[in-house]
Amino acid sequence: MKRIYYYDAQVMRDFVKDYFIHFGVPEEDARIAADVLVEADLRGVDSHGVIRMYSYYGSRLAAGLVDPTTPMRILYESPVSLALDAGAGLGQVAGYRGMQRCIEKARESGMAAVTVRNSNHFGIAGYYAMMALPHDLIGISLTNSQPLIAPSHSRAALLGTNPIAVAVPAGKERPYVLDMATSIVPIGRITVFQKAEKKVPPGWGIDSRGCVTENPEEILNGGALLPLGGTDLMRGYKGYGLSLLVDLLSGVLSGAAFGAHVGESNDQPANVGHFFAALRVDLFRPIEEFKQDMDRYIQELKQAPLAEGEDRIYIHGEKEFEKRLSYEKDGFPLMEPVVEMMKDAARQAGVPFSPLPLRVEEVNS
Amino acid sequence: MKRIYYYDAQVMRDFVKDYFIHFGVPEEDARIAADVLVEADLRGVDSHGVIRMYSYYGSRLAAGLVDPTTPMRILYESPVSLALDAGAGLGQVAGYRGMQRCIEKARESGMAAVTVRNSNHFGIAGYYAMMALPHDLIGISLTNSQPLIAPSHSRAALLGTNPIAVAVPAGKERPYVLDMATSIVPIGRITVFQKAEKKVPPGWGIDSRGCVTENPEEILNGGALLPLGGTDLMRGYKGYGLSLLVDLLSGVLSGAAFGAHVGESNDQPANVGHFFAALRVDLFRPIEEFKQDMDRYIQELKQAPLAEGEDRIYIHGEKEFEKRLSYEKDGFPLMEPVVEMMKDAARQAGVPFSPLPLRVEEVNS
Repeated sequence: MKRIYYYDAQVMRDFVKDYFIHFGVPEEDARIAADVLVEADLRGVDSHGVIRMYSYYGSRLAAGLVDPTTPMRILYESPVSLALDAGAGLGQVAGYRGMQRCIEKARESGMAAVTVRNSNHFGIAGYYAMMALPHDLIGISLTNSQPLIAPSHSRAALLGTNPIAVAVPAGKERPYVLDMATSIVPIGRITVFQKAEKKVPPGWGIDSRGCVTENPEEILNGGALLPLGGTDLMRGYKGYGLSLLVDLLSGVLSGAAFGAHVGESNDQPANVGHFFAALRVDLFRPIEEFKQDMDRYIQELKQAPLAEGEDRIYIHGEKEFEKRLSYEKDGFPLMEPVVEMMKDAARQAGVPFSPLPLRVEEVNS
Repeated sequence: MKRIYYYDAQVMRDFVKDYFIHFGVPEEDARIAADVLVEADLRGVDSHGVIRMYSYYGSRLAAGLVDPTTPMRILYESPVSLALDAGAGLGQVAGYRGMQRCIEKARESGMAAVTVRNSNHFGIAGYYAMMALPHDLIGISLTNSQPLIAPSHSRAALLGTNPIAVAVPAGKERPYVLDMATSIVPIGRITVFQKAEKKVPPGWGIDSRGCVTENPEEILNGGALLPLGGTDLMRGYKGYGLSLLVDLLSGVLSGAAFGAHVGESNDQPANVGHFFAALRVDLFRPIEEFKQDMDRYIQELKQAPLAEGEDRIYIHGEKEFEKRLSYEKDGFPLMEPVVEMMKDAARQAGVPFSPLPLRVEEVNS
């Protein structure tokens, strides 16, 4: 029997904010970091949600590896660009402020790009890309991350699962929101198979010799994830190219760590790098024309003939928007062990764990 | 027994230029179109090379579907952007001139983006992205194309193989040049298996019911290619998302045709759309620092531990640069049927087929 707790989003945001404030994070920054985490849960990306409050953030704040004040410094600036140093601060705060400045510049100059070095894990990449949408901008958000993917023909994990997030506004239809890791699956997916003592589909990962394996243990212990595409036969070098590209823009262009050096050591700042860009649609055609064509395209895709056994064609971001509607209204789910972990973290920090669940479900595991 | 002819690149460029001039293409434009085609052969991307001189270009010029003068018109302009209408002209000329203006604007303003509507097939996307390299710019080139890929859960070909090309300068090392279709393989690859009466690897394509098939006939007749990643299990919806993204930028943002409507009818202009962008590296950090890190990253990847059975790790573009070196020096190969087809096209147009091969090789087929 497993217990699932459903929480109100705002109640959980308030708690996570208080948790961050305890570590010396300024209130406004704590609000941002909490919002990014809870937003992941609301969108059904629970792997990047409050489950990481302690392991990715609290524990590193406590150890002094993350500067709670996120002292952002401008390295270079132009009307279309900004190169920032996040001073080993919170990734979410660096991401939010970086994208905010990017949007301001793009609104004024038509387009803009912002790099951030010396940052930390910033949560879901899609959060920042989506910040562009209310301004009728196309938003792009990239980040590097700790190495988990082997480049084609190698057996070593040298590239992060470096996500690509792009948000494009539509009219009556929901916007297009791509938010994808450049590996086939995240490492957490392999762990799920390991815990369930199940084989993984061939192609997701390799063992320590560089051979495709269905054994999750071998992928996790000395092996690596494969990039989108998988093996050479299925053109995995394209996914390798995309993962590398994200790192060239997030890591090398920003002057952050790159490749195997991202978060190299557990007792040093991770020196993660981000890249943000925003582009005014109305530079190229009137916004209403553009939105009409977006709507038409989305409708044509959704009305396309279905493959046998399928019941629906999705646009990127659609599933997440639907989840969010339901979770915002009726609460979002957390498994009991996650709630226990958050309670422990709260106890350790001396912050009361205030959220009461809206309801509890019991499911047969 | 098969014959392979090896030609000098410049001799072939001169012939293709003369061929285009015959159709009323101005000399400078003809030189550009010829250079893009021969460059594809030099880089080993022979599917996009002179093999297409007649089928993609000559035949459509002859039918009046491509305007030989490529009358480019500015729709909207800002210091960081340009929206162009190519007047149903040659895709290579539209691409070259679009990227040229993009580079000028990026050098001046720091970054720029250019859209082109009402264009035609422009050859290899990488050509235009690479134009940015001598200026220490990061170059991006995207285009949509006739529908061949089925979106995830559909059985209909609604998306082009819409390529992504990005070029990033390095120092002593060769630049990073990604130039990838967003399908797993191009349609021509399926035809190769069909001609050889061989099965294709499962996952490359689907039949008319939307089921994965190993039969190339079924993919080619009423079926479709799958996007990078392939099936849902291997996260093909990420490749679907990338293919769609390329079309949102190349087709929808430019105001060109999109999705199923690209090159919809054989007796109408194709209304292909392109998207170009360029970004100054030195907006974000000194160019020499950046190049040093690029070199270091490339070296680290190339020196990474090899997977069993592999002998080398490649950076994107590396194989093509090496081929180009050898083909530029010793001639590039064309199969006899391609040469025959070019001779036919020349005869039909009344243009002498001047190129003499540097050498002829006979191989057992």
